[in-house]
Amino acid sequence: MVAILTLLTDFGLQDAYVGVLKGTIAKINPQIQVIDLSHHIPPQNIRAASFCLANAFPHFPQHTVHLAVVDPGVGGSRKSVAIKFDQGYVVAPDNGLCSQLMQEQKALGAVNLTNFKYWLTPSPSKTFHGRDIFAPVAAHLAGGVAMTELGESIAPESLVMLPALDVVPTPTGLLGRIQYIDHFGNLITNISSDRVAGKIWYLKVGGKRISYRHAYGGVPVGQSIALIGSHGYIEIATNQGNASQELECTWGDPVEVTLV
Amino acid sequence: MVAILTLLTDFGLQDAYVGVLKGTIAKINPQIQVIDLSHHIPPQNIRAASFCLANAFPHFPQHTVHLAVVDPGVGGSRKSVAIKFDQGYVVAPDNGLCSQLMQEQKALGAVNLTNFKYWLTPSPSKTFHGRDIFAPVAAHLAGGVAMTELGESIAPESLVMLPALDVVPTPTGLLGRIQYIDHFGNLITNISSDRVAGKIWYLKVGGKRISYRHAYGGVPVGQSIALIGSHGYIEIATNQGNASQELECTWGDPVEVTLV
Amino acid sequence: MVAILTLLTDFGLQDAYVGVLKGTIAKINPQIQVIDLSHHIPPQNIRAASFCLANAFPHFPQHTVHLAVVDPGVGGSRKSVAIKFDQGYVVAPDNGLCSQLMQEQKALGAVNLTNFKYWLTPSPSKTFHGRDIFAPVAAHLAGGVAMTELGESIAPESLVMLPALDVVPTPTGLLGRIQYIDHFGNLITNISSDRVAGKIWYLKVGGKRISYRHAYGGVPVGQSIALIGSHGYIEIATNQGNASQELECTWGDPVEVTLV
Repeated sequence: MVAILTLLTDFGLQDAYVGVLKGTIAKINPQIQVIDLSHHIPPQNIRAASFCLANAFPHFPQHTVHLAVVDPGVGGSRKSVAIKFDQGYVVAPDNGLCSQLMQEQKALGAVNLTNFKYWLTPSPSKTFHGRDIFAPVAAHLAGGVAMTELGESIAPESLVMLPALDVVPTPTGLLGRIQYIDHFGNLITNISSDRVAGKIWYLKVGGKRISYRHAYGGVPVGQSIALIGSHGYIEIATNQGNASQELECTWGDPVEVTLV
Repeated sequence: MVAILTLLTDFGLQDAYVGVLKGTIAKINPQIQVIDLSHHIPPQNIRAASFCLANAFPHFPQHTVHLAVVDPGVGGSRKSVAIKFDQGYVVAPDNGLCSQLMQEQKALGAVNLTNFKYWLTPSPSKTFHGRDIFAPVAAHLAGGVAMTELGESIAPESLVMLPALDVVPTPTGLLGRIQYIDHFGNLITNISSDRVAGKIWYLKVGGKRISYRHAYGGVPVGQSIALIGSHGYIEIATNQGNASQELECTWGDPVEVTLV
Repeated sequence: MVAILTLLTDFGLQDAYVGVLKGTIAKINPQIQVIDLSHHIPPQNIRAASFCLANAFPHFPQHTVHLAVVDPGVGGSRKSVAIKFDQGYVVAPDNGLCSQLMQEQKALGAVNLTNFKYWLTPSPSKTFHGRDIFAPVAAHLAGGVAMTELGESIAPESLVMLPALDVVPTPTGLLGRIQYIDHFGNLITNISSDRVAGKIWYLKVGGKRISYRHAYGGVPVGQSIALIGSHGYIEIATNQGNASQELECTWGDPVEVTLV
């Protein structure tokens, strides 16, 4: 069996930080296969990391360990945790990074990572727990150490959760928000596809009315459309363009769906 | 034998899209070694992807499978294809992405990827065939499934080709174009080195005359030169600078070579 | 044993250059595990590469081979070298890229890479020694070829060193410099933590007085602090912000520490 460990951070790829994580993992267990989810999470944007983690998680093999470090509170009082799900584990700061995943999948257990036997050093730096705590712990977990060895068990219900972005019913449909903007400028709302399945609808965002189409190519180049995106949410895209720029929309903006 | 699968996309590395491709591949066959060619192809720039694929292809081991997804027509009527070459395979949308490679190497066969037994799901999303069709098919191909299992055979001659960028003889030499601009701002023309081998020449681009030198260091810092680049084409570079910015040139601009 | 080979370049990830390095390595020995340190070193910034290499080096397993190519002098008269340390090897142009590592760890030997039997071709391009010389040589070294096979031995003392950035005592403390700025905008000075250990101090940079705190969260959001960074140097950061932008500081700027 190949042990897989994914990395999700806001470290960027300019510095050697990610390389150092991988070196630290290889030093502990060079057989582990490391896969990057992303290192370009906008700095300190826990909600973006939470979205990416939840979306990638189901696409990985059983027993995968996901190391996620977006950690503005490093060196402070926030806990470091490992969380067990049916399909794998997450190792992360306890700051809400797992919120979206925990809404979608049941957490089966969690530990507070206090057993410094599995850290790089019992005296970690105040600024780089990714290297000093999270990467070594994740490598040991991926390599077969039992999660309960890594610290004392805590209730998954006690973990920090980000406030949920709600979808609110309106007289004519639904009011949601843009929860994520991707590299292409596609606007991913928090309105899941099952809320509009089998119905006829359009939406308004940034003062503009946008019609539903089944694929990017359904309209002329440069025109914006609403569609069911690959994440399972309503998504707004511009055919061969950047919807975020064209519609001048950003994270958190309201999106109003009208069912006709 | 190690099965190698490369990835070439315009997905960027900000989101979890590339991670999801790798998870999908690992779920099918965790023994496959995945190598990134690039995920920063300018969005929807099929010609840039075609250039990168053709340049990287010969440097990989026999039997390598190259997964290339720059796919503005996803969800529309374009075919999904696998193409066999002497040295390996390409799995890609049929939109011209293989044009340059097919001009340089003979395609030995191709299939239309219609056998959904090798897809992630028989009901793929309309926007992410990378995850739902291309990655699973490429993983199966790299893992040993015969290409002919993946769908019905089609003639390589029937595949979509981008219009070629021509090099035209002039009374005093050759007229070509900038076919690619790299990270350093080096301008790579479409004039291959054998057109000027053993001759004395200079070129004009953006209204400026540029002399031939054999290496970047052949002129003072900040000065531009023409040289034979590592891709085998005439290339314009600025010593320790960015030729694209200094010469204010862009993709497709004409380049006139004078043989003296 | 798993053979590990790291890559550190200024190639960026836009083009297929890094992919070509990996293909070249895989063609020679597909069992080698390749790990990226960074490919976003600012173009031709040898000092930044030297800093990243020295910082990452100790975190990798014994026998790791580090391939580092930031090479403005490619095609000119600079040597190509391999250098042996107790913990592993570096393969690089002889342009000062190993300066910082050689100040921290003793070089045990070096060779001038003249044995073209281990190159991709005896007639390398003038612009891409990464592909034609460094990657093949590093792959052979990682795969078990003795370093002394790769060319003639040279004295480590003969290798090019960058001028050191000095830390100068002042009547009230120390005068150092910003030696590196990371992705988060954190300013990493060249003043090592042991110079201020157990003392009370503050610093001035860009005309502003900055106080010492033990972690990022020790001040309100948006305020700047000095702390002992994970590299072992005094570092200036802004809580959940970008210190380089807020303080308008750049590479090489002076930093004055006052011991009180």
